[in-house]
Amino acid sequence: MSDALEWIETPAFVVRDAVVRRNIAAFQSYCDRQGLALRPHVKTHKLVRYAKAQIEAGARGITCQKIGEAEVMADGSIDDILITYNILGPEKLTRLRALSDRVPRLSVVADNDTVVDGLSQVFADADRPLTVLVECDTGGRRCGVQTPAEALALARRIAASAGIRLGGLMTYPAAGGASDAAAFLSQARDMLLRDGLDCSVVTSGGTPDMWTAQSGGVLTEYRAGTYIYNDRSLVQRGTCGWDDCAGHVLATVVSTPTPGRAVIDAGSKALSSDLLGLTDYGHVLGRPDIRITGLSEEHGVLAVDPARPLNVGERVRIVPNHVCVVSNLFDRIWIEHADGMLEEAAVDARGRVT
Amino acid sequence: MSDALEWIETPAFVVRDAVVRRNIAAFQSYCDRQGLALRPHVKTHKLVRYAKAQIEAGARGITCQKIGEAEVMADGSIDDILITYNILGPEKLTRLRALSDRVPRLSVVADNDTVVDGLSQVFADADRPLTVLVECDTGGRRCGVQTPAEALALARRIAASAGIRLGGLMTYPAAGGASDAAAFLSQARDMLLRDGLDCSVVTSGGTPDMWTAQSGGVLTEYRAGTYIYNDRSLVQRGTCGWDDCAGHVLATVVSTPTPGRAVIDAGSKALSSDLLGLTDYGHVLGRPDIRITGLSEEHGVLAVDPARPLNVGERVRIVPNHVCVVSNLFDRIWIEHADGMLEEAAVDARGRVT
Repeated sequence: MSDALEWIETPAFVVRDAVVRRNIAAFQSYCDRQGLALRPHVKTHKLVRYAKAQIEAGARGITCQKIGEAEVMADGSIDDILITYNILGPEKLTRLRALSDRVPRLSVVADNDTVVDGLSQVFADADRPLTVLVECDTGGRRCGVQTPAEALALARRIAASAGIRLGGLMTYPAAGGASDAAAFLSQARDMLLRDGLDCSVVTSGGTPDMWTAQSGGVLTEYRAGTYIYNDRSLVQRGTCGWDDCAGHVLATVVSTPTPGRAVIDAGSKALSSDLLGLTDYGHVLGRPDIRITGLSEEHGVLAVDPARPLNVGERVRIVPNHVCVVSNLFDRIWIEHADGMLEEAAVDARGRVT
Repeated sequence: MSDALEWIETPAFVVRDAVVRRNIAAFQSYCDRQGLALRPHVKTHKLVRYAKAQIEAGARGITCQKIGEAEVMADGSIDDILITYNILGPEKLTRLRALSDRVPRLSVVADNDTVVDGLSQVFADADRPLTVLVECDTGGRRCGVQTPAEALALARRIAASAGIRLGGLMTYPAAGGASDAAAFLSQARDMLLRDGLDCSVVTSGGTPDMWTAQSGGVLTEYRAGTYIYNDRSLVQRGTCGWDDCAGHVLATVVSTPTPGRAVIDAGSKALSSDLLGLTDYGHVLGRPDIRITGLSEEHGVLAVDPARPLNVGERVRIVPNHVCVVSNLFDRIWIEHADGMLEEAAVDARGRVT
């Protein structure tokens, strides 16, 4: 651990900038080779600076999940934003309309008539129509129309509605479900095109399967978020290695009550309880023999080999199970630059729940 | 649902003030009858206003887990604070020393020599000694000395150290472990007293077992946090009923992709992934037939009976599994007063991780 990290108060979220830059470049390069537009999801970092870095590296624009995130990114002059969310209700629609005046290329998704009709109503008198993609459930079992025929029906409704225009198709597939997604999307795209509808964007996403993003051949665009920092869940899947993990929780051992137990000052309010199918709550870098077996809100309990104990006051770097939620738990983070310099930074869009 | 709640943007955290007041009064009354001092843990609400309400109702002071929480409470003029945490490292010790100048009755805990020595060093020249309690592991398997004999040894060290004074014993017991805790604490207290040491405070805590707090007879003080809001985990344990749950996540149905599935705009960044041993991610009030079967960051997936569907745009109130972490995910919450009036409030100590 570099000396500079010895004086930061813990728990802290530390981001290694050089790894971030390498991760951005590597996946951009993959997408460029595949002829895929890349539209990174900012939910992971929630930072204007890294959204800009992703665009400067060649990304088409960014993805947001909430209007609040998009508002922060618009404040940072990001001009191409896809919000992959059904937006409804008068307050949110009013905010979306206001956002569209600031973001030249703004698009959203819809998977039902209520959402389409709400968007159309509020954009009916807009100078520029809002682009709407049809969200398809290709196996992820979250939102989305269930069949290509339903996608066609909703696409027709969008195309026929005032104030909005059809942009194409969007999915968030199940992990490992790229081929199912490709089959669904190919069929739906063909139905749209046969119907004379626009389907210029076919966008899928997800870091777990990002290195086979274009295997189905139908996608025009890919959305990935976690790849910028990576995390333990992605190492376990084989998507990346520990050296590719840019986001670390720095914690201090505050207690060693027994020879086999150490307690750190990072609990579920720093690491989150997300398991993502894993056992335990994170990976202690350089100490694969240590297990993080339990979290309470402000304590993490570590099982250690009594022959290789940790000492009170000792610090550990942890790769969290799921880095996207960790980013959202810290108001301020530390960016560790390649030269070892540490810079404190506010997490611009942290906590933008609406 | 009251009409006033129809226009709040979702997801939102809504706190029913009348239920809060009732929960505060009920447990204060129990402690008064048992002759127990009550020292509520503010980690659950993180609000100065409710800390003050707890003290006005008769609480001795408050409990914090982090110096950052205590600093916010000191800003709110709370003058009796116990930080139940091993505090170490130069930055935190400096902050603690500064805090002690603002908080007339400040106490902390320690379970090891390193922490005791650090406290002593930084308080050696203080006008008023810092009160330190010995943290005991009575079965909770987190921090704490392991035996009454270890408690005595550490108590002696505290009593012999400059700048600090021994206050007594502290534990956070295992759920259901009150009698084990009482046995440990009785023995340790007797050893301290026989040694001529001060043991005027014997403090335990935990909402799950709060209604049998004094069953062991040894405690002078009880710390509970969650009881102010309550949550699904406590209903499942039988500690309270649904009507005693003051903290609700208000969410909107954004999609109904299949007859048996509804998707809401509250995911793990609103409800958290905490399970606390439960199945599913919360309880939909008034609809026990609905299950919240999955969360991604910004979506919750509900299994609904197709014969009793939810509609897009419909709102639900959810009692979360673990309300303390939910409180920490919202910068601002809505307090629903008894007359139906809604007041927006900042969560004063949200995100104070250090």
